[in-house]
Amino acid sequence: MNIEMIHAAAGRLAGHARLTPLLNAPLLDRIAGRRVLVKAECLQWTGSFKYRGAWAAVSALQGTRGVIAFSSGNHAQGVALAAAQHGLSAVIVMPKDAPQVKIDNTRAYGAEVVLYDRETENRDAIGAALAEARGLVLVKPYDEPEVIAGQGSVGLEIAQQFQGDAEILVCCGGGGLSSGVALACEGKFRVRTVEPAGFDDVARSLAAGARLRNAALAGSICDAIVTPMPGEITFPILQRLCGPGLAVSDDEALRAMVLAFQHLRIVLEPGGAVALAAALFRPDLPETVVAVATGGNVDPAVFAQAMARFG
Amino acid sequence: MNIEMIHAAAGRLAGHARLTPLLNAPLLDRIAGRRVLVKAECLQWTGSFKYRGAWAAVSALQGTRGVIAFSSGNHAQGVALAAAQHGLSAVIVMPKDAPQVKIDNTRAYGAEVVLYDRETENRDAIGAALAEARGLVLVKPYDEPEVIAGQGSVGLEIAQQFQGDAEILVCCGGGGLSSGVALACEGKFRVRTVEPAGFDDVARSLAAGARLRNAALAGSICDAIVTPMPGEITFPILQRLCGPGLAVSDDEALRAMVLAFQHLRIVLEPGGAVALAAALFRPDLPETVVAVATGGNVDPAVFAQAMARFG
Repeated sequence: MNIEMIHAAAGRLAGHARLTPLLNAPLLDRIAGRRVLVKAECLQWTGSFKYRGAWAAVSALQGTRGVIAFSSGNHAQGVALAAAQHGLSAVIVMPKDAPQVKIDNTRAYGAEVVLYDRETENRDAIGAALAEARGLVLVKPYDEPEVIAGQGSVGLEIAQQFQGDAEILVCCGGGGLSSGVALACEGKFRVRTVEPAGFDDVARSLAAGARLRNAALAGSICDAIVTPMPGEITFPILQRLCGPGLAVSDDEALRAMVLAFQHLRIVLEPGGAVALAAALFRPDLPETVVAVATGGNVDPAVFAQAMARFG
Repeated sequence: MNIEMIHAAAGRLAGHARLTPLLNAPLLDRIAGRRVLVKAECLQWTGSFKYRGAWAAVSALQGTRGVIAFSSGNHAQGVALAAAQHGLSAVIVMPKDAPQVKIDNTRAYGAEVVLYDRETENRDAIGAALAEARGLVLVKPYDEPEVIAGQGSVGLEIAQQFQGDAEILVCCGGGGLSSGVALACEGKFRVRTVEPAGFDDVARSLAAGARLRNAALAGSICDAIVTPMPGEITFPILQRLCGPGLAVSDDEALRAMVLAFQHLRIVLEPGGAVALAAALFRPDLPETVVAVATGGNVDPAVFAQAMARFG
């Protein structure tokens, strides 16, 4: 992985990925006690930054009939749309208990959705069988150089949109976006990962100097960014370039989601709001921070509950 | 009013107003049965296009100590922030029953808010007394050339962001935004006004060829864009340049608000969603339409109710 791969991916994405705005609001800055710039990747195609990595990976393929991906939702939608735009078929293997809106959207973008039971079925075996039978190429969600390069285009845009001293806070699951942005902004901005408290495998791994697993994979409202452990490819990049990892509580993520709705007029799922939550509620951050708001589909019931509690 | 005034206002706004994105979503196009581009003015400073007109008007003043405005909310916030950015004091006369979030935000931007009772007190008398006592200049919400010129910058941006055949649909109260956009896009795009059904004074006035009043001023969920009648300055421009006016029901506005939340990840109040509602639900529109989503602050109870019904 190097900066040239990110420039190459950004070149392929030009005219396809949307250049998302860097938003801020005086009243939000007052709540934070610092200047908070928000890279609004919720306004990206399919509603999350995942479209960038998916498009970068799909556009790098040659002589492929179709692609396959495993995802509970955001990567699914990104791969589905990117594949359709390249005239490729897409099969997305999704857990039966994925949010219905994410399953529906993935199908609406033209992908074939294969549902499996997390408790009783083996996702990898299902995917491998399908891939072999149909000649499909796997598009991994984060531990894949072209995906990391595509996500890195977010960092190139931030560096164009903001000049000055700042730290960049990034919502972090497997580390594809964080490592891509860190590479894109090397020498300009320090990147810090933000995870849900209790599911902070990246923060603990950075502190320990080795890849550690999460104790559990369910139980966070920020389910979209809960992954087993940092990626093989992403972790060394995070180790070299990213500062201590941050973590926020579920309530902080929900409050950030509500404040983004009220003051920035954008819609985030809780997992897509953790970087903003850290920007708003963590002490010991610089005067200016850029929070990457990664987007996602919000469960209406979760949103209603958050508005009732914090709106 | 002419195009030169709009270019002059846009020049003063450069680097101050935000160039808002033109969003779209494949799944929303499918619902509409046409291509729907959304000019997301909810992402403008203070959450609505009103900041543009307010900033344009305030920046045109010379030797003024302060400004005064009447508004139930969006114009209030625009004038408050624009005045603060010019080092001017601002007094905003707001009805006691204006949404609390709009009163709070107006104060947070540094304005002095004077509340009055719509039933028993005369807004104009209160304003005139304050203006005279303190030497304040009135910034009208729409029937004012510099305000129209500032709102017209939305049209210049659309013409830069989209080339092709389309109609532009604009949420319309007194007609400041509609007339500004129509002047800015003259010879390029036809502009059509969109109002709440039952409060469609502009549509009826355009059909009749004379300024007609609304029968009532309360009772629409789209309260932010209900005005007594078309403006003296705005109406001749609308008459010369705008096609037949459109109207949508309260339920259509609420559905559009929910679909914007789900598919575009932006937050609109019902009055800021009527142009999108027409783009989605009216027959007999061209293959491509640009809907200006004007923004505003959503009452959490209204939003929750809409999500429960249409989410």
